[in-house]
Amino acid sequence: MKLLVTGATGFIGGHLVQRLITDGHAVSALVRSDSNTDTIPKEVSLLNIPEKADAFISLFSDKQFDGVIHLATHFTPSHTADQIECMIDANITFGTHIVEAATSTNVPWLINTGTFSQYDAEGAYAPANLYAATKQAFQDMLTYYAQGASTKIITLMLFNTFGPGDTRKKIFTLWKEALDSNTPLPMSPGEQIIDTSYIDNIVEGFCHAAHLLHEQSSLLTGGETYSLPSSERTTLRDLATLYADVIGKKLPIQFGAMPYRPHEIMVPLVGKPLPGWEQRISVREGLTRTYLS
Amino acid sequence: MKLLVTGATGFIGGHLVQRLITDGHAVSALVRSDSNTDTIPKEVSLLNIPEKADAFISLFSDKQFDGVIHLATHFTPSHTADQIECMIDANITFGTHIVEAATSTNVPWLINTGTFSQYDAEGAYAPANLYAATKQAFQDMLTYYAQGASTKIITLMLFNTFGPGDTRKKIFTLWKEALDSNTPLPMSPGEQIIDTSYIDNIVEGFCHAAHLLHEQSSLLTGGETYSLPSSERTTLRDLATLYADVIGKKLPIQFGAMPYRPHEIMVPLVGKPLPGWEQRISVREGLTRTYLS
Repeated sequence: MKLLVTGATGFIGGHLVQRLITDGHAVSALVRSDSNTDTIPKEVSLLNIPEKADAFISLFSDKQFDGVIHLATHFTPSHTADQIECMIDANITFGTHIVEAATSTNVPWLINTGTFSQYDAEGAYAPANLYAATKQAFQDMLTYYAQGASTKIITLMLFNTFGPGDTRKKIFTLWKEALDSNTPLPMSPGEQIIDTSYIDNIVEGFCHAAHLLHEQSSLLTGGETYSLPSSERTTLRDLATLYADVIGKKLPIQFGAMPYRPHEIMVPLVGKPLPGWEQRISVREGLTRTYLS
Repeated sequence: MKLLVTGATGFIGGHLVQRLITDGHAVSALVRSDSNTDTIPKEVSLLNIPEKADAFISLFSDKQFDGVIHLATHFTPSHTADQIECMIDANITFGTHIVEAATSTNVPWLINTGTFSQYDAEGAYAPANLYAATKQAFQDMLTYYAQGASTKIITLMLFNTFGPGDTRKKIFTLWKEALDSNTPLPMSPGEQIIDTSYIDNIVEGFCHAAHLLHEQSSLLTGGETYSLPSSERTTLRDLATLYADVIGKKLPIQFGAMPYRPHEIMVPLVGKPLPGWEQRISVREGLTRTYLS
């Protein structure tokens, strides 16, 4: 397939384009002209993000993609006022240009990426932060384009992810830093349920969804959101125990030294899992591959 | 009350600030530096829209508003790709700066403005155009800010409006032009239900909502959307008959010469009407005031 991926310089996007290349697809990545693209495999065609709206459509007309995987995002767990514009630009405006171009040029399908932090445990919209609100806002834009377009649009909703090369300030990264520097790490009481997946499981989810969409499978409905939940959800405390067990060291975590965050998600929703996909690599195996190899 | 109004150079905003001044409120209007503000009453304090996000917060800190009425919008019934950025800027980013500043500085309440074209007849999200999608997207941003903020945030959902000084390409304006130029006007079959209100009814709705919010009335729930429906809904055909009767002339409309628009709303939802508000001025009386005085 001739695929366009956004967000290829990110953690998930980087692993995904590597896998797509390995699987023999022709992959283009849409990147900012000032992005560091060193981590992107040389087989990927790099395309600069157009400056003007019309140029997105020309680019899509020219390339005739078989599908688009939209992963680009600007994440911050809690924002300041001066981040509003760049979050809206990255998480709403950029994606709107992508979907306008994809639907205008009849790209057969588009996979968008959502986050569990848009929802409460029952699946009602209840954004944990402004980032989650921008993701929800973009899905509203997608709904408009999905109406009557020949492009089949779905969203894959992700939970936490981890794996090699992850530079995001995520939980295992924080724990690794605390271990390496032997610095006490104050944390919340730790009773919140954590859903975290080794990156290869998530990459497999995107590939499986792309395959179903390419085959025009009736298993997927346009406009729908499908989730990639871990089959091993645990509390943050139990996850720390597992991590320490894999690493073979005691973690310097002080559970309860901090309050829960505002809007802390104690139980993530499960959502509607992507049909035919399941987690293959356990958290223990993923941690081993990430930290012991 | 010390009130901030956005969109005061528009049709509804212009009528609203006039009424608020008449009622004795201290009104500030946030306007673009290049806006034509000739239509804004001289009693209104004009404030330039800040260039930077932080400056919104400084402005709000300085002014200590008792409430904010957010009417500013960029409307287009059907968009082209090059309008995407300006629609997102006007309908999402600008409003996000406003609500960030309002909640950060504990403004007691904020009224946002929604549109019936966000919804189908049952009230499910089904945007008639990209404009409606941006309005829905902004409400998702509002939901984030409404969580745990001391600012009570509601949305007033509007249908069509008309009255003196309306330069928008709305139905009565089109009919007036066709009459004046005696040009045949091809239209859709005309069986769609139209909800249109004389402007004074809508201004009364905003004033009533502001009053309830100022009194901290339990009739209004934060985060909720309230509608201002007409009590005289009719088909477009019957509305044309009424209009012709008021004007005393036959309209050169060719019903059925055009197809319905994509996503044409045949029956607008009613929504949850604003408690304690009702239409006082009939469509006939409104048309008389608009076109025969």
